[in-house]
Amino acid sequence: MRSHAANAELALLLEVAGTPKPGNVDRHRDFPDLRFEHFLAGAVGARPGLDDAESGAPVGEAFERAVAGMSEQSGGNTQFGCLLLLVPLVRAAAERGLTPESVTHVVEDTTVADAAGFYRAFDHVAVAVPDLPDDADALDVRRGSDAVPELEARGLTLYDVMAESAPADGNAVEWVGGFERTFAAADRIEAGAGSILDRAADAFLYLLADEPDSLVAGQHGREVAREVSSRASELLDAPDADVAAFADDLVARDINPGTTADVTSAALFVALERGVAV
Amino acid sequence: MRSHAANAELALLLEVAGTPKPGNVDRHRDFPDLRFEHFLAGAVGARPGLDDAESGAPVGEAFERAVAGMSEQSGGNTQFGCLLLLVPLVRAAAERGLTPESVTHVVEDTTVADAAGFYRAFDHVAVAVPDLPDDADALDVRRGSDAVPELEARGLTLYDVMAESAPADGNAVEWVGGFERTFAAADRIEAGAGSILDRAADAFLYLLADEPDSLVAGQHGREVAREVSSRASELLDAPDADVAAFADDLVARDINPGTTADVTSAALFVALERGVAV
Repeated sequence: MRSHAANAELALLLEVAGTPKPGNVDRHRDFPDLRFEHFLAGAVGARPGLDDAESGAPVGEAFERAVAGMSEQSGGNTQFGCLLLLVPLVRAAAERGLTPESVTHVVEDTTVADAAGFYRAFDHVAVAVPDLPDDADALDVRRGSDAVPELEARGLTLYDVMAESAPADGNAVEWVGGFERTFAAADRIEAGAGSILDRAADAFLYLLADEPDSLVAGQHGREVAREVSSRASELLDAPDADVAAFADDLVARDINPGTTADVTSAALFVALERGVAV
Repeated sequence: MRSHAANAELALLLEVAGTPKPGNVDRHRDFPDLRFEHFLAGAVGARPGLDDAESGAPVGEAFERAVAGMSEQSGGNTQFGCLLLLVPLVRAAAERGLTPESVTHVVEDTTVADAAGFYRAFDHVAVAVPDLPDDADALDVRRGSDAVPELEARGLTLYDVMAESAPADGNAVEWVGGFERTFAAADRIEAGAGSILDRAADAFLYLLADEPDSLVAGQHGREVAREVSSRASELLDAPDADVAAFADDLVARDINPGTTADVTSAALFVALERGVAV
């Protein structure tokens, strides 16, 4: 039996290998400086932090360690958002079995120290956010660990920080909404046909069609995010070649639905925990 | 810093992702029932056994655990031979730094109990060997753990078993010959240009050209193994498309240079230990 942490690491690997995953690095597509092998190394590097989450370490501490290990490759940020979802899911699976309720209990239980771990994690990696403007909020995540004193002064838990980031950040929406899209996509993977990699690609497209990607919205604006999501809806039952053409188009336009990939990895983890076979 | 075990797991992942690796599953090629995702799960599943090797567990015990974990996927044998090389290499790296001498010390130090662990590992997975004939030797590996009493009666260590299997088995040759090809290929990876996945594919072709693959010789005869090796020599500096055509040809003929892939993974591990970046 694979451990919960091993299932989480495998979910990261299956996520990046699923193809086509329009706009993302996958088994058949690289970006110039962010390539498949960076994701392989990121997944392996994250393992000690995932092991910590399974052993009952605080969420913020386990997350920071996972991100630090993930960052030991030259591609930059590979799986920050995935780990933000996976760490509480692993903790919930180890503590009391994986359900929307158990993971909600884990995230609601987070502390100010967990929020500090989350901010410190930003020191390890350049997450895809624009440069810090002069008038940036005292709790802007781009401040990394510099924001910790302010965080402590205000007494904000990691759950509070996520509640503040929702609804603009799709991962934060998962945190404060019972991981609704994660479990829905896991149902789809569990019920699906074909290899686990085909199902990973299908889950990605389903999630992208379901809702505009929040990373795309942040980087290219809400209109582009809506256009990408709407195009994904039209392709849900389209021939593989059409989806592949869409994937090539997004890579060419540097449009990267990263949040959708994050939720896909979380859904793969839930499916593996439920016994979906590889 | 990744642990030695993490480097070994990453070496397994980089090995299978390197492309083209003629005749093997790689980033762009599957066999009908043995696919990329099986190798991803095999690498993750092997990790506890690799961790044991790093912590100083006996080689046979760590190997058996690694193989048992590797086998928790539906593709069958994915990385048995890789692990036979990686386990003593990880142990050597953890014990006294990785050199031909340190790994030779580890393998020469193996016991009868290690040999028993090696035989028991065959119970976990169908390794690619033909059916057991009626007159098979009492120590035929296909007997798995049934051979252990005979092994103990004869007092054979795992090193003795490997010495018996060389020169027909290329992995056994590595064991008893200071991992010569492993370190030579690691030198080539270290000195090479391009991404680590390009270097992995180059190391594979170099090793295949260097010597006929022992798995191919066992399955298709020595003549075919020589032909494949000779064709690889001609392709060492050939355009990618020619190598890709060779890869497709080998898959079509069901010719799988598995031993060469095993040594490639071991060489990638040595290169990672030396600090080659991903």
